[in-house]
Amino acid sequence: MQPKLSTRSNVEPFHAMDVLAEANRLKAAGNNVLSLAVGQPGNPAPLIVRDTAAQAALHAPIGYTDALGRADTRFAIAKHYADHYGVEISPDRIAITTGSSAGFMLAFLAITEPGGRIAIAAPGYPAYRNIIKSLSLEAVEIPSGDSTDNVFDLDAFLAAHREKKIDALMIASPANPTGATVSKEELTQIIEVCDREGITFISDEIYHRLNYVADDLTALSVSDDAIVINSFSKYYCMTGWRIGWMVLPQNMVRTVERLAQSLYICAPEISQIAAPKAFEASKELEEIKEVYRANRQLLVEELPKMGITFAAPPDGAFYAWCDVSKHTNDSMDFAKTMLREIYVAGAPGVDFDPVNGNHYMRFSYAGNHDAIVEAVERIKNWIGG
Amino acid sequence: MQPKLSTRSNVEPFHAMDVLAEANRLKAAGNNVLSLAVGQPGNPAPLIVRDTAAQAALHAPIGYTDALGRADTRFAIAKHYADHYGVEISPDRIAITTGSSAGFMLAFLAITEPGGRIAIAAPGYPAYRNIIKSLSLEAVEIPSGDSTDNVFDLDAFLAAHREKKIDALMIASPANPTGATVSKEELTQIIEVCDREGITFISDEIYHRLNYVADDLTALSVSDDAIVINSFSKYYCMTGWRIGWMVLPQNMVRTVERLAQSLYICAPEISQIAAPKAFEASKELEEIKEVYRANRQLLVEELPKMGITFAAPPDGAFYAWCDVSKHTNDSMDFAKTMLREIYVAGAPGVDFDPVNGNHYMRFSYAGNHDAIVEAVERIKNWIGG
Repeated sequence: MQPKLSTRSNVEPFHAMDVLAEANRLKAAGNNVLSLAVGQPGNPAPLIVRDTAAQAALHAPIGYTDALGRADTRFAIAKHYADHYGVEISPDRIAITTGSSAGFMLAFLAITEPGGRIAIAAPGYPAYRNIIKSLSLEAVEIPSGDSTDNVFDLDAFLAAHREKKIDALMIASPANPTGATVSKEELTQIIEVCDREGITFISDEIYHRLNYVADDLTALSVSDDAIVINSFSKYYCMTGWRIGWMVLPQNMVRTVERLAQSLYICAPEISQIAAPKAFEASKELEEIKEVYRANRQLLVEELPKMGITFAAPPDGAFYAWCDVSKHTNDSMDFAKTMLREIYVAGAPGVDFDPVNGNHYMRFSYAGNHDAIVEAVERIKNWIGG
Repeated sequence: MQPKLSTRSNVEPFHAMDVLAEANRLKAAGNNVLSLAVGQPGNPAPLIVRDTAAQAALHAPIGYTDALGRADTRFAIAKHYADHYGVEISPDRIAITTGSSAGFMLAFLAITEPGGRIAIAAPGYPAYRNIIKSLSLEAVEIPSGDSTDNVFDLDAFLAAHREKKIDALMIASPANPTGATVSKEELTQIIEVCDREGITFISDEIYHRLNYVADDLTALSVSDDAIVINSFSKYYCMTGWRIGWMVLPQNMVRTVERLAQSLYICAPEISQIAAPKAFEASKELEEIKEVYRANRQLLVEELPKMGITFAAPPDGAFYAWCDVSKHTNDSMDFAKTMLREIYVAGAPGVDFDPVNGNHYMRFSYAGNHDAIVEAVERIKNWIGG
């Protein structure tokens, strides 16, 4: 008898991953595929990170660490908050996690019971919805509204909360897939409302240091009660290393430690040893960011000429969230056809917004500049822009 | 307002980790601490694994892989089943996971709804209970009974199932903390019962290749419908690398893939690249196993002279599950006092069996031989054996 599959495990696939798999098949068959589908930096981790990891692999014992992470890694991250944000955080409040993925899981489990509700912005990162569903929670999606200046519509959020009590709100800024960012005024207002209504605020800051128009703003500069989730994956080019962190309100530390002991034991130690070296590689990483900035500029200039408009201001991250309604009303079909006909992979909007996503595509511009130039050229010829 | 903590996150700490933390403090203060507390091999990963990892860190891109893992890693594990067990498994059924920890999580989520019941053996690995609780499931603990020859009491299991319907049964063989193993006859009988009763069978095979008295037996040689969980942590000395795998019944593959995409994205890629090299390091690893065998022999000979008896036959793994009731009725106090007075760290039985664990201690003998010799000497002098 094969196992009976559960309802809660029946989550949506991440369609961008399926597009990526097809792109990889086409690549393996010898085609020149350009990938703008996933949030994968085109560069590897900084050299000092790779060197440190190689030395650790060869010479360090590499074993279980404390569940919340190595003391030196936690200390380095606390120092990053002082250096980068001017915010003092005790290393005791830092939990090293196996990517931000583990951060979401630990945060949700620590503060919700089954049937609880977590509000997220729509469009948004699809894994949010899926983790929430798999933990028997309800994702309450708050449309960002017609106003494309905002990541988040506070009035719509409050209306949803009045209708059914929301336990936690999670916002990413810069956001995936839009790249939009909240202002300090908006963030302060959101956190005040959450505080007043007894709603836990979770700040996904994974795209920090990838803002092209403003300084980074951590929720910790507004409140010590926010749960902050971050990672070395994006700006630091360390996706496959699976290393991230949380900054926890003091009262959550021991709970997250106990959960992490059993659910993860610890984050991979080579990554724990190597990742903090990335803080010393700002020169190398800022050069990579300048490539993203040039890529972004190119898309901002060229895509509208093809009738592809920006559905949100691409302030940060490395994504363009584009309205392709002039060309399709089925974003998955658009993505598949574009890949098949011109070997350009993009992420279908339905990944990020199951309701309205069919009119949108997300293009990741984290690759090298030549690839983005070539992709723009192919799309232009393809849709006759 | 600090976040309100959930009931489901209120899991027990892993007391052995707290003992380890105290041992580390004593060590840092300059004391000669001997650690028999956690399942951490004294040796690092095989040389070829470390070399491969160092090269990958330096020269491979290291990015997101497919959620189920790199194709070459999945292929290598499928080949291991043919080579080591003589069982043909399609690589399509292999999921590479972030340690066995992720395997448990994915298996439980894939087949249960909140309120579901998973039967496990008592005593058992504490993370089982905690993961189960955090997913709003009930752990039904099946006492192994007075008969210490068995990992598992099938009659007690059936009685529990009649009382309240059990959804899945998970058994580890060799077991943690006892080291006991099931025979092929027993395993076949257990799987037949599960099949008849509509109970999913999960086989935790993380201590395979660490059996001192019999050949390894995978549940896959009995049934293709069993979920098998394994890891490179123990025999392959790769705990801190966080790399394991599952072998899935065919109907679960896509479900686990979708869950893994959102919950983990992928296992750490350096570990995915390096770990399969461990299959080529049998000579080095068998030499390490011979040290464990000698350690085990020493404990089997010496502990009973001190009135510490084996509560289960230590057939496999690298644990001795010991009855210390002649010396204490509070295993946590025993562990703390032993650490404080003679700097020997062991794991208190309450970790593994909250009901009867106060009369037991688990000693891990995965360290080097000199350390075990010295630990035995200290314990002997301490309790006047």
